[in-house]
Amino acid sequence: MGYALGTILARGFDETLEGTRTALSEQGFGVLTEIDLRATLKAKLDADIEPQVILGACRPPLALAALEAEPSVGLLLPCNVVVRSLGANRTAVEAMDPGILVQLTDNPALADVAADARARLTAALDSLAPAPA
Amino acid sequence: MGYALGTILARGFDETLEGTRTALSEQGFGVLTEIDLRATLKAKLDADIEPQVILGACRPPLALAALEAEPSVGLLLPCNVVVRSLGANRTAVEAMDPGILVQLTDNPALADVAADARARLTAALDSLAPAPA
Repeated sequence: MGYALGTILARGFDETLEGTRTALSEQGFGVLTEIDLRATLKAKLDADIEPQVILGACRPPLALAALEAEPSVGLLLPCNVVVRSLGANRTAVEAMDPGILVQLTDNPALADVAADARARLTAALDSLAPAPA
Repeated sequence: MGYALGTILARGFDETLEGTRTALSEQGFGVLTEIDLRATLKAKLDADIEPQVILGACRPPLALAALEAEPSVGLLLPCNVVVRSLGANRTAVEAMDPGILVQLTDNPALADVAADARARLTAALDSLAPAPA
């Protein structure tokens, strides 16, 4: 299985980033952390990459349920959502597939939490994609 | 394979958290994000868990090399290091095993980066453990 859910949009980076925040909020995720990877790598290494932001998305009831099932699961939280530019009017939005929580921990008690998170992230990504003509 | 590297210390939480920051810094990791999971779950759900902090550790040269090898790898960055209380004088420190980058992506080009990160995180954890008598 893969580790990413994702979509590619024919939109600019800034607009897509804001749309992603809204879509996550509508699915009950808060954003606990945010890393501007381009700014970080520029500051630390003077390296130039395309715009890329890592949002750490967390739905607290799911996080609590996951911790109760698997004490070390904080290592895999929050659920990263990456927005990265592929060009002037082309932006990728990807989410860590919560299925990897079950895969990596081999703990079936995480299955329901992972399925709920996966459904919500998929819905958030679907809400960003343009409706079919 | 597992997803965690870890150690358990006969020390309090606050002291261990500070020691972990120092140990990560000595191994060339910056801390890009920090989540006080207890405070977050208390604020959002009025739930009570033991003290637990998730540090997002990043060594910029490794992050850049990982991105060059695997464009979606931001989904698995930064490398989480969790400090969590197991009682008054007992604290766990765990790090996400960077080996999962190779496992999840099935991308052998990440092997060197993962091995370097793993060696540094292992050294950081080892530096926290008391020397044998």
